[in-house]
Amino acid sequence: MFGLVLAIFSITSAITAKSNPHPLDPLSPTELAAVRSAVLASGHVVPPLPISFHYVGLDEPDKPDVLSHISATVTSGGTIFLRHAFVIARAGGLSHEFRVDITNTSAPFVLSHGIHGGHGFPMFTTEEQVAVGALLPKYPPFVQSVRRRGLAITNVGCGVFSMGWFGDNDARRLAKMQCFVTSTTANFYARPLEGVTLVVDMEAMAIVSYTDRAVYTVPKAEGTDYRAGKAGPPFNGPLPAPGVVVQPEGKGFHIDGHVVRWANWEFHVGFDMRAGTVISAASVHDTDANVWRRVLYRGFVSEVFVPYMDPEEEWYFHTFMDAGEYSLGVSAVPLQRGADCPANAVYLDGYYADADGKPVKSEDVICVFERYAGDVAWRHTEVGGAGEPFAEVRPEVTLVVRMVVTVGNYDYTLDWEFKTVGSIKTVVSLSGILEMKAINYTHVDQIKEDVHGTLISENTVGVYHDHYITYHMDLDIDGTENSFVRNTIVPKRNSGIRATGGALTPRRSYWTVVSEVNVNGAPADLLFVNPSKKTKIGNRVGYRLISAGATATSLLVDDDYPQRRASYTKKQVWVTPYNKSEKWVSGLYAEQSTGDDNLAAWTKRNRKIKDEDIVLWYTVGLHHIPYQEDFPVMPTMSGAFELRPSNFFEKNPLIRTSPPGNSPNCSCSVGG
Amino acid sequence: MFGLVLAIFSITSAITAKSNPHPLDPLSPTELAAVRSAVLASGHVVPPLPISFHYVGLDEPDKPDVLSHISATVTSGGTIFLRHAFVIARAGGLSHEFRVDITNTSAPFVLSHGIHGGHGFPMFTTEEQVAVGALLPKYPPFVQSVRRRGLAITNVGCGVFSMGWFGDNDARRLAKMQCFVTSTTANFYARPLEGVTLVVDMEAMAIVSYTDRAVYTVPKAEGTDYRAGKAGPPFNGPLPAPGVVVQPEGKGFHIDGHVVRWANWEFHVGFDMRAGTVISAASVHDTDANVWRRVLYRGFVSEVFVPYMDPEEEWYFHTFMDAGEYSLGVSAVPLQRGADCPANAVYLDGYYADADGKPVKSEDVICVFERYAGDVAWRHTEVGGAGEPFAEVRPEVTLVVRMVVTVGNYDYTLDWEFKTVGSIKTVVSLSGILEMKAINYTHVDQIKEDVHGTLISENTVGVYHDHYITYHMDLDIDGTENSFVRNTIVPKRNSGIRATGGALTPRRSYWTVVSEVNVNGAPADLLFVNPSKKTKIGNRVGYRLISAGATATSLLVDDDYPQRRASYTKKQVWVTPYNKSEKWVSGLYAEQSTGDDNLAAWTKRNRKIKDEDIVLWYTVGLHHIPYQEDFPVMPTMSGAFELRPSNFFEKNPLIRTSPPGNSPNCSCSVGG
Repeated sequence: MFGLVLAIFSITSAITAKSNPHPLDPLSPTELAAVRSAVLASGHVVPPLPISFHYVGLDEPDKPDVLSHISATVTSGGTIFLRHAFVIARAGGLSHEFRVDITNTSAPFVLSHGIHGGHGFPMFTTEEQVAVGALLPKYPPFVQSVRRRGLAITNVGCGVFSMGWFGDNDARRLAKMQCFVTSTTANFYARPLEGVTLVVDMEAMAIVSYTDRAVYTVPKAEGTDYRAGKAGPPFNGPLPAPGVVVQPEGKGFHIDGHVVRWANWEFHVGFDMRAGTVISAASVHDTDANVWRRVLYRGFVSEVFVPYMDPEEEWYFHTFMDAGEYSLGVSAVPLQRGADCPANAVYLDGYYADADGKPVKSEDVICVFERYAGDVAWRHTEVGGAGEPFAEVRPEVTLVVRMVVTVGNYDYTLDWEFKTVGSIKTVVSLSGILEMKAINYTHVDQIKEDVHGTLISENTVGVYHDHYITYHMDLDIDGTENSFVRNTIVPKRNSGIRATGGALTPRRSYWTVVSEVNVNGAPADLLFVNPSKKTKIGNRVGYRLISAGATATSLLVDDDYPQRRASYTKKQVWVTPYNKSEKWVSGLYAEQSTGDDNLAAWTKRNRKIKDEDIVLWYTVGLHHIPYQEDFPVMPTMSGAFELRPSNFFEKNPLIRTSPPGNSPNCSCSVGG
Repeated sequence: MFGLVLAIFSITSAITAKSNPHPLDPLSPTELAAVRSAVLASGHVVPPLPISFHYVGLDEPDKPDVLSHISATVTSGGTIFLRHAFVIARAGGLSHEFRVDITNTSAPFVLSHGIHGGHGFPMFTTEEQVAVGALLPKYPPFVQSVRRRGLAITNVGCGVFSMGWFGDNDARRLAKMQCFVTSTTANFYARPLEGVTLVVDMEAMAIVSYTDRAVYTVPKAEGTDYRAGKAGPPFNGPLPAPGVVVQPEGKGFHIDGHVVRWANWEFHVGFDMRAGTVISAASVHDTDANVWRRVLYRGFVSEVFVPYMDPEEEWYFHTFMDAGEYSLGVSAVPLQRGADCPANAVYLDGYYADADGKPVKSEDVICVFERYAGDVAWRHTEVGGAGEPFAEVRPEVTLVVRMVVTVGNYDYTLDWEFKTVGSIKTVVSLSGILEMKAINYTHVDQIKEDVHGTLISENTVGVYHDHYITYHMDLDIDGTENSFVRNTIVPKRNSGIRATGGALTPRRSYWTVVSEVNVNGAPADLLFVNPSKKTKIGNRVGYRLISAGATATSLLVDDDYPQRRASYTKKQVWVTPYNKSEKWVSGLYAEQSTGDDNLAAWTKRNRKIKDEDIVLWYTVGLHHIPYQEDFPVMPTMSGAFELRPSNFFEKNPLIRTSPPGNSPNCSCSVGG
């Protein structure tokens, strides 16, 4: 939720070129270095004017070009394509936008340069968050506040909190800082120095405002540390047996550059500074037709909006946009082998640019593994029929692409799960540490007013908040032109007249389905269909959206400032026509944004979405009332949605799969 | 959904007595045999009057006695308890109820006998379904109907369909029969003999009515068979790599009689003819307090209501109650090793009584396994703080208790998943075969009227329908007296006044929580709390209900007959005071029931549920619009809910667990 940052190790060594370059490949270290050279050499920002790189990412080719490359790869082994990067850099108090041609990394050049004239700022850099933190121990009023609480300045750590936008016209790039007592526990967030807030100018690197509003008891350190070495021994927590997945025939997937092939799926895995994992060009193989059919052109987490529900001075502005303010890619953490991902996972690295524009390697930042959860893909036991009773069962195996993003206190495990049945399921799992408020109470009975949260430990309130994880899903179901269809379930009274769907039977009611393009209320299946493609028997080819819990939408009033910035969070589902520039649901410049460039603003143009190239924006939403079990670190909570083929295939695509062979009982099954 | 039955092999051999008998143990074969002897010897049903046993199950001791036994076991190694059985048998056209004492299986005796005077009938027996099926080939009008369609009588198979209740006063125990062409495919349901319906008297074993309303094209056999030998080779379906879970230190759970102990859980697994798996006396260990704390006294699937949405003559009565009409326990199938359950599962048998009262063994009918799905129980990466950056991660391992029930065409995989965090999650996964209607159309474009379903193959409509799986969950959160609390999330405008929860900040709105006992609308956390137990800091001890998709409720009109019988399906959540006799949400006699003895009828008494022993009834609901992928056998769809500790523990119960050791990288990880 707020930024605390690891030392950065810049890398300069180029890695070997990929075997099969793809137009959607993320920028390589060599390419990132070339972007930096081109920007610095461009003359648009004349040294010694300091420049800081806030975003460097692929400026992907236009969709028709990418699609023609992909099909050309299939037929002729590839085409040549141009490589462009998009850059947002700050210099001279301005946000500069560059488009850079890096097709030849030895001779990169700036294609275009512009200055952002609207509201908002790019994401914070890691370096500026570190630098601004260094100001505080030298700032006398802060040192005095710490002393007043009987603490030493060396025992206090601070974080950079985005301050949102609350109607003011201050054009400065500002942030707030709040602090914690960190010397006695590894739980950075458990002992807030409540009541103290600083405002810092991120550009001038100066403290511009300071408030020490009230002194609260600092919660005790005892019971806050969750590191194994501090929580145990004795490790007397619940103890299941260790288990590990063994694949006697090896892994079932293959990674070629950034392209993953597994079972009936092929897709591209990219990595972006702001979004983290990007899934592109996902196609599913149709066994019967023996063709690859397109499903998802590009999918990624576009924003993570986390508003807290305490209107108090120290809390009202806690309305974070984790992607647009802190960068999910930069916040992605190295995955722990055998813990974050199972033993059968393989790991991918990511690269991004530091504030100086130099490439940074994020090691083991994505893992890919086959998931054997013990579920069943389909089954039936038949005791009727002419022959002997029998059972046919096919176990479910799925492929998971996982990233974990730790934005300050919260840890989001973001899974893309591919299923052989043709489904893509995205799962968000939340763990990590609550944002906690120090309070003078030690027992619920002492509390008479609204403390805007749950007393989860003595002197500690877990503050109420929401999580809205919004996905950009550019679905191309069996081709580019799609429509969004609502199969509404409509209750009917039995008319007794066959022509109107009734029958002369004692049954008085039933429901039927009314298929409509676009949206309204009532129970329904929501589908993305390709109106130009039908199954052999005439059904529209489509994919269906299935919510799996976590369907909360925002309860803030429409005219509240955070709600204006994240106005799209009042609806779970949005559908827009594809527009290459509309990637970021909260706007390109989300930090201190005013809501004038977000999804809800774009859709006011009321553009055509029937039989067009359309994009689904889906928000996984959770209202989080904390409970004591969430302390000192939260057990995982999950939300998900699934896109499932629905009249996409002619029949169940898993019919022609063989039942499990000898493997489950093979000699590898030791110790079981 | 309707009954088709396996030949039954009666067993008479007694199995060895369990090491630790438990008052909730299901009836053993010896006990079942003793029940039969006592009933036959009782004189209430004088031979040669034929008697058929429709239900024989444990008549469990009163809850205080069971609880005192369990606590006595802990302190003194057990107490003596009485064993009673409850029987519903049909004889002389009446439903007889017996309570039988089988404490001494050598001298069992009938404690009480009564005749059911109300509406409804007990579940069909397997034997009577087989017997009534044998009538059809000898019934000339039926033979003629088959011939008229150019078919041979030997190529046709029929099933017994419960006919529900549609307002008539016929006191007979009737059922309908419908038929399929079965010789050319193993898919019994794919080739309906549409238009033909018979009514049979299950008591007189006679056909009482016959209709051949219309002739429809019988769908072709091609593409309907899903057996591996018929669908392939070639097995060109999607091919993930085989995988198997290896547990280098062995399994983490232990089964003693019917009691399962795993990690921080202890619970009893029973098996009932009507409900199948019954989970009892589930307690979770509190590591810090070093005590076992009660969570669930008894949980099971109480009914599975499946109404179809076609008002036509052959379909209007398809409104099945799978538990109350066909028995889930009797319909539970032997689990396929390595397919229905993973290789590390252990299997349990179940026993029930056949129509003659003799014990039947259901082999491998429940499996228990530790699930390693690759998920994370909790994690955090910390880059702030005084020390080095670190990550703490605990992988998630859960324990699954699984049963698969095949009621005719549908296969329900019913999981109880226990989590170390203290959660109990129940998951329903649907697979199997759709109920299909034969139709003369071969293409969607030919269809002008409402066919009440989706054309899923030529001449084949998958009929719209719902699934309502209702759980009886007798929660005893940390003791017997509980309250149901709604933590409603209430939007607030910022008043600017601290005394009313506001603050003088630019923030205009937030939400807060209003805690109310009992129910209304709006977003909320639903909890079961123990008002007499609080955490150390004063929060009410509780468990929270979390829906994970599948929250459909019935759309039938209130005065429709099937809706009167299943009137409880209009709400997801019901809470009632505990009453030992209120087990079956659709009433004790669900077959041809009228709704006068169901959950909605009981609750009209408006009984007190605050600070009482209360029961949660939760319905997992799905509106099922079929798609072509559901043909010829359905890929699995799931719905679930979770009961999760919420201020039950003082803190995250998984803190004192050690991180993963060497096991994930041990030498057992071959081939990965």
